[in-house]
Amino acid sequence: MTAGGIADEVVAPTGRGWMRSADPPASFTMWRYRELLPVPDGPIRYPLPIGGTPLLPAPALRRAWGLPQLWIKDETRNPTASNKDRATALVIEGGLRRGVDTITTASTGNAAVATAFGAAAAGMRAAIFVSTDCRPEKLALMTQAGARVFRVRAGYAAAVDLSRAAAAAFGWLDRNTGANPVTLEAKKTVAFEVWEQLGRRVPDVLVAPVGDGPTLVALDKGFAELESHGLVTRRPRLIGVQAQPCQPLVRAWRGEPVGPADLDPAATVADGIAVMRPAIGDAVLDAVRRGGGAMVAVTDEALRGAVATLAATAGVGAEPAGAAALAGLAAAVELRRVGREETVVLLVTGREVTAGGPADPARVAVVETLDEVERAMAGG
Amino acid sequence: MTAGGIADEVVAPTGRGWMRSADPPASFTMWRYRELLPVPDGPIRYPLPIGGTPLLPAPALRRAWGLPQLWIKDETRNPTASNKDRATALVIEGGLRRGVDTITTASTGNAAVATAFGAAAAGMRAAIFVSTDCRPEKLALMTQAGARVFRVRAGYAAAVDLSRAAAAAFGWLDRNTGANPVTLEAKKTVAFEVWEQLGRRVPDVLVAPVGDGPTLVALDKGFAELESHGLVTRRPRLIGVQAQPCQPLVRAWRGEPVGPADLDPAATVADGIAVMRPAIGDAVLDAVRRGGGAMVAVTDEALRGAVATLAATAGVGAEPAGAAALAGLAAAVELRRVGREETVVLLVTGREVTAGGPADPARVAVVETLDEVERAMAGG
Repeated sequence: MTAGGIADEVVAPTGRGWMRSADPPASFTMWRYRELLPVPDGPIRYPLPIGGTPLLPAPALRRAWGLPQLWIKDETRNPTASNKDRATALVIEGGLRRGVDTITTASTGNAAVATAFGAAAAGMRAAIFVSTDCRPEKLALMTQAGARVFRVRAGYAAAVDLSRAAAAAFGWLDRNTGANPVTLEAKKTVAFEVWEQLGRRVPDVLVAPVGDGPTLVALDKGFAELESHGLVTRRPRLIGVQAQPCQPLVRAWRGEPVGPADLDPAATVADGIAVMRPAIGDAVLDAVRRGGGAMVAVTDEALRGAVATLAATAGVGAEPAGAAALAGLAAAVELRRVGREETVVLLVTGREVTAGGPADPARVAVVETLDEVERAMAGG
Repeated sequence: MTAGGIADEVVAPTGRGWMRSADPPASFTMWRYRELLPVPDGPIRYPLPIGGTPLLPAPALRRAWGLPQLWIKDETRNPTASNKDRATALVIEGGLRRGVDTITTASTGNAAVATAFGAAAAGMRAAIFVSTDCRPEKLALMTQAGARVFRVRAGYAAAVDLSRAAAAAFGWLDRNTGANPVTLEAKKTVAFEVWEQLGRRVPDVLVAPVGDGPTLVALDKGFAELESHGLVTRRPRLIGVQAQPCQPLVRAWRGEPVGPADLDPAATVADGIAVMRPAIGDAVLDAVRRGGGAMVAVTDEALRGAVATLAATAGVGAEPAGAAALAGLAAAVELRRVGREETVVLLVTGREVTAGGPADPARVAVVETLDEVERAMAGG
């Protein structure tokens, strides 16, 4: 059994090497892979360690589900508890080197929280655009980290448009998923880590939640790069999971027509993946088809059950969207798309973290235009 | 500038070593120090990586406060966001080797959450004893991880007594702070990490929140062991922080008499450190005095301000008790107990994590006797 964070101790020789070592203990972070990241030479300036998250064997969950080769890639161990921290770090690292002082993104929640905290750590301003139905707990986290939050009544797509227009107009860093390819570059490091943590093996199946799409597409890109470097000869089957009330890519994968009336992002507990128009949906479908994977939809009941099972059998806390991979695995096993002896990795990303209080109303504004954004940012 | 999780990248030679390496990436965890821990040879069975938390330079906070050598030891990066995970892991590791199937503790919150999740990961049962004023969010986390929770009307001290009696009567692992010295052994690894992460230097000052006392006493023990191994020649001054409405050890340190009527644990937002009768209070006072440190009390306003400052200037999310070290630092600077050029480490431990829903009532019972406990545990 080999897993980052565990194998270490299992195989480590004892002795008191650390007492004599002149080197500080080495941390495992995503910068391990910097040669394959768009980051120039020189010291990393981003001040929070990111990535290097554990691949957990989850013995009790394996027994309970009869899947002896099941692993959990626990992305909740990142600073704001999701893989969005990777994208935030790489985008900000580039901005720090260019002297940019403000970062912007639109987000259904976790990317915004990651951006707010990452900007705070790096001494940058953050301008976050959300739809007016963004959960208040997430808003509170954003303002706690000092971000400016702009609520956009016309919804998530309009929030993306306004964020991107602001980035272009004011010279801000544009961290928008789908718009900034650097986010994919950062998230692909999850594939590198899984491969190394499995002892330089590719899993048979990797299950991941799908909202806008970058998480799954970046995994595919990571495995493709391992292949192009001659390190692997095959790729895992990727299984993408969406919530039943808002499953545009599951429907598209099945070849079913889908219109706005078929999708209700507000009708699921998995707000983090409830996206009506996925930013890079076609790339998701390509990646899933290429590897012989699948798209599956799961009910809210299954999502809640997955949250409870992850906590009670693996000791991993996750929000419903974060636990979607476990719910999706159940569906995929049912559909006989996953064999019980296969090596399966679940990407768990997103956890219920709160600010312990409400959002600071002075940092939140409803806006429609760039002028309103500019005035609010100038106001402090 | 040297810090675990950062120094790595700053000094690491580039090149593609990871592509050729046969070894999985090494994670930095508390098991690095296993030779100084009471754990026999052989593989570590505890399935979650613990410790090896980052020491953050917090550049924006340093600038804002005019403390160029300020560091944050970010214990919120543990699985349940506090240093209690270390104690839980070491106690459970011992239990797994002896074949014990149940662990118990009483706790004001975080130790209980750590125990519930740790037990779930390890496939153990957890029996948690809390006072009836335990925060509902913490209760929900405990039951989410499948723990049995016993509420004790007579308060925290009675909860400790009942938990210890249950451990003795039923052969359970007793993880109670103050009762089980293994908890100190685990938490002392924080001192080892800080010393290594500072480049084998001892900070001038280390500031930590104080409830029952083990966090601070274990830091002292860790530095004492470094001294006894000839690795350091001095110890840091330890500054312990309590909340103004419940500051028994600050009062004792000042030599002021203090009775129950002077202490109101329910009157502060820092529930995690609001303990009327600290389990090892005398050892706290010894450790603080020995190193020339101090005990300081902080208001709820200061605690809330510290939470906001940590988030907005360091990108670190913490609950009020978890951010107490920053509030205490402000008080200590004001009292001229800390110089601006000194190397100061803040121990930040405890974050607002939630289960995203209420506690499972089927797993919570109000009890007074061991018989009631036994019946509830037999019931599933």
